Formats: sequence, C-alpha cells, structure tokens
Amino acid sequence: MIDTVAFSGDYTKLRIIDQTQLPNALVVRELMAIEEIERAIKTLQVRGAPAIGVAAAIGLSVLARRIQTDEMPAFLRELRVLAARLVAVRPTAVNLAWAVRQMTQTAETAQNTRDALARLREKAEQIRQDDIAACKRIGEAGSRLLFDDCGVLTHCNAGRLAAVRYGTALAPIYAAAEQGKRIRVFADETRPLLQGARLTAYELHEAGIDVTLACDNMAASLMAQGKIDLVLIGADRIAANGDAANKTGSLGLSILAKHFDVPFYVCAPLSTFDADVANGAQIPIEQRDPAEITAAFFKEPIAPAGILVYNPAFDVVPHTHITAFVTERGICDAANLKNLV
Amino acid sequence: MIDTVAFSGDYTKLRIIDQTQLPNALVVRELMAIEEIERAIKTLQVRGAPAIGVAAAIGLSVLARRIQTDEMPAFLRELRVLAARLVAVRPTAVNLAWAVRQMTQTAETAQNTRDALARLREKAEQIRQDDIAACKRIGEAGSRLLFDDCGVLTHCNAGRLAAVRYGTALAPIYAAAEQGKRIRVFADETRPLLQGARLTAYELHEAGIDVTLACDNMAASLMAQGKIDLVLIGADRIAANGDAANKTGSLGLSILAKHFDVPFYVCAPLSTFDADVANGAQIPIEQRDPAEITAAFFKEPIAPAGILVYNPAFDVVPHTHITAFVTERGICDAANLKNLV
Repeated sequence: MIDTVAFSGDYTKLRIIDQTQLPNALVVRELMAIEEIERAIKTLQVRGAPAIGVAAAIGLSVLARRIQTDEMPAFLRELRVLAARLVAVRPTAVNLAWAVRQMTQTAETAQNTRDALARLREKAEQIRQDDIAACKRIGEAGSRLLFDDCGVLTHCNAGRLAAVRYGTALAPIYAAAEQGKRIRVFADETRPLLQGARLTAYELHEAGIDVTLACDNMAASLMAQGKIDLVLIGADRIAANGDAANKTGSLGLSILAKHFDVPFYVCAPLSTFDADVANGAQIPIEQRDPAEITAAFFKEPIAPAGILVYNPAFDVVPHTHITAFVTERGICDAANLKNLV
Repeated sequence: MIDTVAFSGDYTKLRIIDQTQLPNALVVRELMAIEEIERAIKTLQVRGAPAIGVAAAIGLSVLARRIQTDEMPAFLRELRVLAARLVAVRPTAVNLAWAVRQMTQTAETAQNTRDALARLREKAEQIRQDDIAACKRIGEAGSRLLFDDCGVLTHCNAGRLAAVRYGTALAPIYAAAEQGKRIRVFADETRPLLQGARLTAYELHEAGIDVTLACDNMAASLMAQGKIDLVLIGADRIAANGDAANKTGSLGLSILAKHFDVPFYVCAPLSTFDADVANGAQIPIEQRDPAEITAAFFKEPIAPAGILVYNPAFDVVPHTHITAFVTERGICDAANLKNLV
C-alpha cells in the first residue's frame, strides 16, 4: 500500500489517501490550496493524530511556496497565519499543533525566503520520516506483548492509515505477524464515522491479518467470552499525568478492560505527549456535527429531524486505566512517562 | 399514537406498526399469512419482547381461523405446528414462547374448533390487554425512581414501540412526565439496527420529552460528566437468578454504571422471567446476519467484502450489576424476584 501522507513527486503538493472513500475506493488526492487542506483535515479525508501532524507539516511546506513576498518578516507573518488556520481545524490532537510549531520554528531560523522554503521542505520530510521510524519502533516494542493466537481488541483506526506507514496501535500487530505470530484482531466499528469498519478492517484484511468486525457495544460481550487478551488503542493527546484523549469510546473500553482484567495499552509516538497539560480534564474535546450521527453514511435519516445529539469526537482515558504506554522509546507506565518525554 | 400491536377491526388480521420504516414513515401493516408474520418478527417490523409476545398471540388467533378442519385433534396438531414456527423465529425473548404456550394451552381446553377460535381470540386480546396494564403499572412503580431534572440513559427501545402501549423501560419516563417531572433522556443509538435512534428518539420526541441521541460508545463520557442519574433498560429474558438478557450493549452499560456508581434498573413484565433457566449462561443468544453491521441502512458497504463479523443480538447482564427490577408488581431486587414470580 502507498503511504497515507506524502509530498507529490515534485514537492508542490500534499498527497493523501482520501479515507472518506474507503473501503469502497482507494482515492489519492493532491492538495495545494489552504482551503483544500483545511477541508481534508476537517472532513477526515486525512485523520489520525500522527497523519494529520505530517499532513500539516507537508501542507505548510507546500503553502509556503505560494506566499508572494521575498521579505522574511512578511513571509513569516503569512506562514504563521496559515499555521494558525491549520491548528484550529482540529483542537484535540496535539501532533497537529506540534508539527506546525516545528515548521514555523524552522522557518524562523532561515536567512531568506528561498532558504526558508528549502528548510521547510526538508523539515516536513524529516517529520514524515520520523513518523515512519517511530511507528516502526512502536511496532517492535509492542510486538513483545503479543503471543501466538492472542486476541486483540482495537478501537477506531490507529493503523497505517492513521500515520504515514505501520500505524501506532496496529504497528505491533503488523510486527508480530511478520514474526510469524497468528493474531486475531477484533475491530470496533467506531461510530459515528466507522473508522474501525471502514479503515481498520480494510487495512488488516488487505494485509492478510485475521480481523473480525463488531459493533462498539459488543466489546463487553467479547471480553466476557474470553476472546480478548489485550486492548491496543492509539491516542490523540496524552497529558503530563498519562491521561489519554482518544476516539470517543476509548474511556468505556478502558473501564470494560479493567472490569474483565484485560491489559489496556495506549500506543503513541512521543509527539502525542503534551507536558503543558497537567491532566485529561484540561484536554479540549472537539464537538462535531450532529449530522455525523443522524445522517452521514445513511440512505435516509436515522433519527427524527431536529433531535438533540451528543457528538464528542474524543473522550479521556484516566491513566489509572492504562496498563502501559507503547512508544518509540519502548514500553513504560504513566509514572515513567514524564521522565521519558 | 396508535397501539404498536393489535387485531384488525374484524379480528381477521394482525395489525402492526412496521418499525423498519420509522422514523421516516409511520406504516401500518395487516398480516394474515404465517410467512408474513414470521418475516415481520424476523426482520423486526415488530420487535421488543412484550410486543412480539402479543404479536405471536394475535398471529396464532388469526392463523387458527384458516386451519381447514373441524376435527379438534387435527386442529390442535396444525395449531402446534404454527406455534412452533413462530417460537423458532427469535430464540432469546421468552415472551414469544410464553405467549404461544398460553395460546396452545387455551385451545386445548376447547370443546370444538368453533369454541377454540373464540377462546383463542379472547385469549390473545387478554394477553394484549394484560401487556397494556402491566406496562402501565411498571410505569407507575418506576416513576418513583425519577425526580425532577434527572438524567436517564436508556439502550435500544423498550418504549411503547416495544410493547402494545407505554413500554417497559420508557414507561416510568412517560409516567413521570405526566406527573409534571422534567426528565432528560439520553438514548443510545443502539447499533447495528439503531432502535435507539430510530425508535426511542422518535417516540420520546413525539411525546414532547427531552431526548438527546448519542452513539453507544459515548455512554461512558456522559456518565463521567455526571449527566446520568440512572439507567433504565428492558429485558428479553430474565433467568431464575436475575441475570438478564437484553439488546447487545446492555452488559457493557451495566459495567459502566457500576464503575460510575449509577443505579441500573431492568424494567420488564413478569412474563419476561423464565424460572426454567437457572442463570444467564443458559439463555440462548441469537446470532444475526453480518450484513446488519456491514451493509444495512448504509448507502454503500461500510466494511470490506467478506470480512468476518460478530453480531449477537443480545448479551447478558449479571444480576450483580442490576440495582433492581421494575415489574408490574413493583420494584424488587434479584433475591426477591423469584419469590415474586
């Protein structure tokens, strides 16, 4: 499979797999206008905390080429406006803000706009390559948790489609499969936008890994039957105390795992940690369009017109529910996480 | 709103609201062939444990009229074949088997087929009226649990559409609203067939009750924010020890309620209790068509073709997770339930 996020061949465009079309079509889009990139992130054409970080970095590199000035102060001013627009699109995932900050800081070190463009392109490609390398190491570290014929439950999509390659929560599964272990994966469909059904089931199925799709509300039933040996999920932002914001449903899953004594792992690169946020209560939670629940995907509306709807994109898993974190620096618990960062 | 299940005016047909068409259209169907009635129950045109019990009773009364014999033994033989066909359609809900057994036993007491038809019609209407009365009493008993401005979470649809009138888990809400209490209801959408979104949100909205729709995986987030004061659900079968089978997702919800110290009530008429089944592990759980998850309702398939799917219709809530049962005989805990029955 091609990378989820990349430069176009000539470095003038951001190239993404349009994930809203999966699993029915593999559509690649090349974007070069700020409105296109904002829309791609807002509508989840590109999604997953690591992937939107890389997309924003490449996006800024591409957008910077079209800034119409040779004056550094004016160039930086425009770049910061573009950066702020991208960060505002999705408030919860910290990788987006992190990548954008890396980019603007890089531009600030340049001598002139020509130099800035070169550095921005280099930095974006470096962020992209770092993501690939981090995910590969998460996979290697996490694969030690997996054993032959084990059952893994995952939620949303924290696979290769959520990063550039390999993914975070699915990286250990890919690595374990390469080591010859047989892994049975259970994918929560992940309402409302069905990233589990459309993306996780798709990419694991494509990779020849045994995957069973279930509705989110069936996780307890699977655990009660002993089918789940561990849970692997990703994260969109991890607070200093280890509380982790992730796709809505993660909190509930962590409580079920605790109840059934199933180990619960959060897999994320260190760029997902936000030391500026003390705990989960301080992580902003994005509220999304009610129509995602009442209408998106459906042939006809599935709820009465004008009904009230609760649609948070994320919830927060308390660090006390997290057995350990799997990062590119290895496996650690919440207490050791801060030192690692 | 009209009753969910009734005789047609001339007692020759089973009249139901076709719930697969809600909330987009209120379609009433009149059925008189065994195949139509089987299909209506299988495809959930009529669903909800109490409603399918009543539908089967009326269905048998209607079907008996078309048995082509005046000989009682032959009549009873044919009636039992029809009864067995109806019971086989949905194995989990005990009300179906209970109502059908009531009907065949009634026919067995008749002197001749003419008398049998009269008794069957009378018995079916009595079962229907008993359901209305039981739900009304469940509402009255359960309304004492509700206070002004309280937040209630419910799962699937155990409302008037799941019974003849009033419902089971929603009956206390209707009764409390009549008493002038303001109740905020949160309805789980209830994947895969979205009974919460399509039916619970619809009937509460129609009744002018404050209802907010959320995805199943958002229940933990709602509880974490303190929005839920209690959970009210129905049941499809309750074992002798109080373990309750209900729509898939109920088990998970009961674990979340326990974690957040939210009272968890199961509302059901005594016809839902099955003293012949010692505990939840012995309740047969219906497995349904994978396409309900991967394709039903959607414009396009939402998962890769041929993917493995886990689709149990129900799960089992252990009696230790149930704060109390709300029945037509009042509120009681699992220990006292058996005595009550």
